Order: sequence, then C-alpha cells, then structure tokens
Amino acid sequence: MNVAGKPTRTIWPAADGASVEIIDQTRLPHRYEIATLRTLDDAAHAISAMLVRGAPLIGATAAYGMWLALRADPSDAALTHAYDTLYATRPTAVNLRWALDRVRTAVSPLTPADRAAATRDLAAALCDEDVAINHAIGQAGLALIRDLAATKPAGQPVNILTHCNAGWLATVDWGTATSPIYQAHDAGIPVHVWVDETRPRNQGFHLTAWELLNHGVPHTCIVDNAGGHLMQHGQVDLVIVGTDRTTATGDVCNKIGTYLKALAAHDNGVPFYVALPSPTIDWTVRDGVREIPIEERGAHEVTHVSGLTTDGEVASLQIPPTGSPAANPAFDVTPARLVTGLLTERGLCPATHAGLAQLFPDHAQIS
Amino acid sequence: MNVAGKPTRTIWPAADGASVEIIDQTRLPHRYEIATLRTLDDAAHAISAMLVRGAPLIGATAAYGMWLALRADPSDAALTHAYDTLYATRPTAVNLRWALDRVRTAVSPLTPADRAAATRDLAAALCDEDVAINHAIGQAGLALIRDLAATKPAGQPVNILTHCNAGWLATVDWGTATSPIYQAHDAGIPVHVWVDETRPRNQGFHLTAWELLNHGVPHTCIVDNAGGHLMQHGQVDLVIVGTDRTTATGDVCNKIGTYLKALAAHDNGVPFYVALPSPTIDWTVRDGVREIPIEERGAHEVTHVSGLTTDGEVASLQIPPTGSPAANPAFDVTPARLVTGLLTERGLCPATHAGLAQLFPDHAQIS
Repeated sequence: MNVAGKPTRTIWPAADGASVEIIDQTRLPHRYEIATLRTLDDAAHAISAMLVRGAPLIGATAAYGMWLALRADPSDAALTHAYDTLYATRPTAVNLRWALDRVRTAVSPLTPADRAAATRDLAAALCDEDVAINHAIGQAGLALIRDLAATKPAGQPVNILTHCNAGWLATVDWGTATSPIYQAHDAGIPVHVWVDETRPRNQGFHLTAWELLNHGVPHTCIVDNAGGHLMQHGQVDLVIVGTDRTTATGDVCNKIGTYLKALAAHDNGVPFYVALPSPTIDWTVRDGVREIPIEERGAHEVTHVSGLTTDGEVASLQIPPTGSPAANPAFDVTPARLVTGLLTERGLCPATHAGLAQLFPDHAQIS
Repeated sequence: MNVAGKPTRTIWPAADGASVEIIDQTRLPHRYEIATLRTLDDAAHAISAMLVRGAPLIGATAAYGMWLALRADPSDAALTHAYDTLYATRPTAVNLRWALDRVRTAVSPLTPADRAAATRDLAAALCDEDVAINHAIGQAGLALIRDLAATKPAGQPVNILTHCNAGWLATVDWGTATSPIYQAHDAGIPVHVWVDETRPRNQGFHLTAWELLNHGVPHTCIVDNAGGHLMQHGQVDLVIVGTDRTTATGDVCNKIGTYLKALAAHDNGVPFYVALPSPTIDWTVRDGVREIPIEERGAHEVTHVSGLTTDGEVASLQIPPTGSPAANPAFDVTPARLVTGLLTERGLCPATHAGLAQLFPDHAQIS
C-alpha cells in the first residue's frame, strides 16, 4: 500500500541485486526507516528482533534470508546452516518453517551454482503468492462493504472497526482484515475505520493507524474499551479482524480483546467477520476455547507502554505502581457462534465446519 | 484504608486546627504526597485541578473549603463568594452543589461568629456520612463474597474483577465497588482482584492498583482486553464496578468499557454487580442507552498516556502516529438485563425498577 504516496511492500529485493530491503517495524509509527539485509545474519536478526512480524512476512523474510546465505555460499553445509539459523529465530512460527521447507525442497536438488538464483526467484514468488491471497481475501470482503455502502445515504462512509494489526505490515501487501478496506477505499467507496488501540502492545495505534494514515484512509483511534458503546449507537457497520488460528469449526483465536468486540457486535446486530488465509485454519481443533493453549507473555508488556516523548524521542513508561503484579494472556478465542462469516482467499463462508468444508473440501475431515 | 500500614482517609482536618489535608491524587501512583489546604482558593484549586476527584470526595472538599473561607471571613458576602467560587470549579458535579447547598442552608441563619465552627462540624459530619454509606454498601457485597468463598476449596481466593476506580480514593473511605473487597479482606476471606487498566485515563492501574497494593489486597493488573478471556476460563468469580449514574430501571452508566465486561460476564455466567450510593440513581431516566448523553472528552487522553520513566520521572507519551485523529467517549451504558444486582447502602436489589422501588419507595415514581 502507499507510504507517503508511494506504493510500498513490506519486503523487496534492493536495486543493487545483492540485498533485501524491509520496513523496520520496531520503529513505527514514529519513525519510518528502511533496513537493508545483506547477510543471513541480517535476515535472522530482522525476524528474531521483530523488525518484521506477521506470519506471511516472516516466511518471506526467511526465504530471502536463504537467498542471502546461498549467494555467499551455495554449498550443502551452508544450506543446512541457513535453514537452522533462520528456523531458530522464531521456532513456533508455522509460516517460517513452511517457507524454509519450501526453499530447501526446491533448491537442494540443484547444483550449487544454480541455488542462489533459484532461491531469489522462489522468494519473489512466495511474496507474490501472499499478495495474491490477500487480494483475494479483500475481494470477498469488498463485496460486503459495497453492499453496506448501498444502504447508506450518499457520501456517508461505511464504518468498520478493526482490532490489532491484520494489515499489510503483517503480510507482504494488502493485509488480511485491512484488504477489503483498502480495496473499498481504492474503489472510491467511502470508508472510515475505528482503530482499536490493542493493549498491551498497541499494534492498532502503532501499526494499523500508521498504515491507514499513509494510505489516506479516514480513521479514528479509539481505546479498546470504546467499541461496545459505538456499536450501541449505530456507529459501527461492520467489524473485520484477523486471526492467528481458526478451528475446523470456525472458532477464532486472535489478539486478546477480540472476543469482547465479538460479544458487542452480536449484542447489537453488527456483522463480525474474520479475514484469514486458509493455512491458518487448524483442522485438528474442534473446540477453540477448550483446546487452544493461550500464550502468557511477559508482565512488562502490560505494565509498560512505549511512545513518543515531547522531545520527539521514543521511550517507555511504567503505568501501575511499582510492586503491583500483572498478567498478560496474549490471545483469546471467539466462539464461532459470534462470527458472522469467514473471509478467505476462496471467498466467504459461514464460521462452521460445513461452511469451511464447502470451500476447502480437501481438508474437511476433522481429525 | 491503609497506606503503608496506616489507616488513612482521602481528606481530614489537619492537626493545626486551621487547615485541611488531602492526598494529591494527581501524583498517584508514583508519588504519595499530602497537600495542605489553608484557604478557599486552595480548596477550589484542589477540586478544579483534580487533586481530589470522585463525587463524594468533591462534596467533602467543598464543605471544608467553605470552612476555610468562613474562618478567614464569616460575613454574608464571604459566604456567597465562597459558595460561588467552589461551585464554579466543576459545575456539573452534582455532589458539589449538594454539599454547598447543605452548608449554606445550615450556616446562613447563624451569626457570623458561629459560622466557621458550624461549617467545620458539618464538613466532618458529611465525611462520616459518606464513610457510613460506603460501609453499608460493602456489607451488602460482603455477603456475596462470603457465599462465593464457601463454594471454593480452602485457601482459594474469590476472584473479583473491577473496572476503573470506584475505590476509597473516589470517596472519603472504603469506596463503593471496593468496599465489599476491603471488608472481605479485613474479615480474613481470601480475595484476589483483577484490576482493569481502564484506558484512556488508566484509573485502574493508577488508583485501584495503588489502593489494593497499599492495603495489602492481592491483585493483578490486566489490560482492558483480558477480562473476557479470564471469564471464559473460570478465573473470575464476580465482577463489581461502580457507577456515575443508574437509571430508575437499573441501566448503569459507568466508565467506558464497563458494558464489554458485562457482556462477557453474562456470556460466561459470571455474576455482575454494581455498587452505588443511592444519590447516583437518576429516577428521571428510563432508558439509559437512549437517554443518557455520553461525555466526549479530549482526544489527548486517548493518544497519550502518563507514567514513570526509567529515570523515575512522571512523563507523558504519544502512542499513535502524529496526524491520526482520536475519539474519546468517556462512559458507556450497561443495560439492566446484564446486571445481576445493585449493591446500595440499603442492601442488595435486582437491577429493575421494581427492585429499586422496594428499597427506595420514596423515590419510586418514575417521572
């Protein structure tokens, strides 16, 4: 999407033909800085230090990291070392392993001299695939927004609430939850986005607001507490969120707080949609609330917040008194009964096993 | 309640017999400072600059402010000036006017020489009345906590979630929502409190956590997004919140985000109680969602957060990117259907007009 008017992806091969450029997301939203990855270690650091985040982007960065490694040394030993180094950066990231496996499978059989170029091409193809998937998700959502726009007085925007960042910064481009929004905006449909802050890590204010601001999409920042009130008063037409993991029955695991918004949407008759690339469907899980373990992250994320000082520096503050403990469950599960529909790269379906099975018949057997 | 082991109120006459002392709440939780009010202007400033906040405490401070004024000059002109000066500090605070009227009505008929002492005694009586009301609210809630404790394995705490600060800092002592908690704790019933951060102004982390920490009540700070997840997993036995205004039908206007917690409590069968002194019942309102206007406060509260720097200074940070607008609805309305019961100084009642009418028959006619 656009940054300062210029179409931009989150990762791209640099003009020198020997390195890769990324947006350093740790600096957003107060600094926009491009980081150059020249070596395997640069790529590994970008993933482990979260200069890049979001499953698709982590996968793409890993693939390009393999290229940087094989450019320097295309031997079998170097291939193994690169795979292991990148895999160790965030071993629980499913997309990371998937991308690394794909590269290894493709280039292992090649003669060393051919490996770097093949890896570069494959990394580029993975990026383009991600963009195509997200664009397709957006098409499914665009139809919903278009229908809602038709019910509004001329010029009145469709008001869409989103939580966390399921935006283009988490992918190569378009994002998942944001893809319908960008496509509607680009098609001239008036949209306005309510951006949830998304404590504790503030991805809504830090990333989603920055994205929308730079692409020129009208939006308003709200605290996580505000969405229910807005829905009670008819100020939200549609909720679209992303997901880290969706069960075979349509339960949705996403950033903590998503469940509360789904309850409010349900209570006020506001449609609640979840945008997802199909690899995030976990066909082995039936009951999301009971079966999905929720990561408990460090208390520091809850007790501290980062932002811009009046001097223009990025700093961190402690909010509660010293001595008060904190808990930090990072995700919650929204039961399928609260989800109006799922937006996938194969279109829209109900948040049920039958709905998912119809779109993805090859996976439909719950194990 | 206790601060560093010492029983403390939020306001008290100083030992010198000529001034009043308060906790400067603008400095909490990172600084505990006592401010001395020696003059009418000191008292007016304490209210307008929010060194004191919370309806009962504002009323008590205004009454003591009248005393300070009349000590210096007990004339009719000074009485009128003091009334007008204090009333202008926060003209929408209902308790402020009520306290000022009560003082004026009581001391106007007196000879000037008797006015100061009478005002001092009345201010002290208003404080004691508030303490008694809050204690009675706590007694009603204590019974609920005792019943829940009886269902728990020995030593397992009753887990209570609260939102914002309806604590002793908002009153003279005990608080409203916290009163049952302090009474249970003091009675040796194991309790543990989940403290909602309460963005945008963070009263949960800044004030409720500080209160509980100082009184020695076990508690855990959580972001506003976490409560639903905790309720899904049986980690909340009871929710108790305060209210700014409750309708004659039991709808509850309280800090933004309360409604979301009530939805989650309802969805998970967790009892949801609201603690209130009866003057906060608005007998003229039937439908809280439709009829109660919600204050829209400044965007700066949403975009900025205050806390402690690593250097130990209190500072403010901007979270979203410069240029992203923000909205700040300060309250929301929880429909009575989501409220298990109301805890008042006359006991517990259902959140219905019939329930309120039974406890308060003198007010029961809806106008």
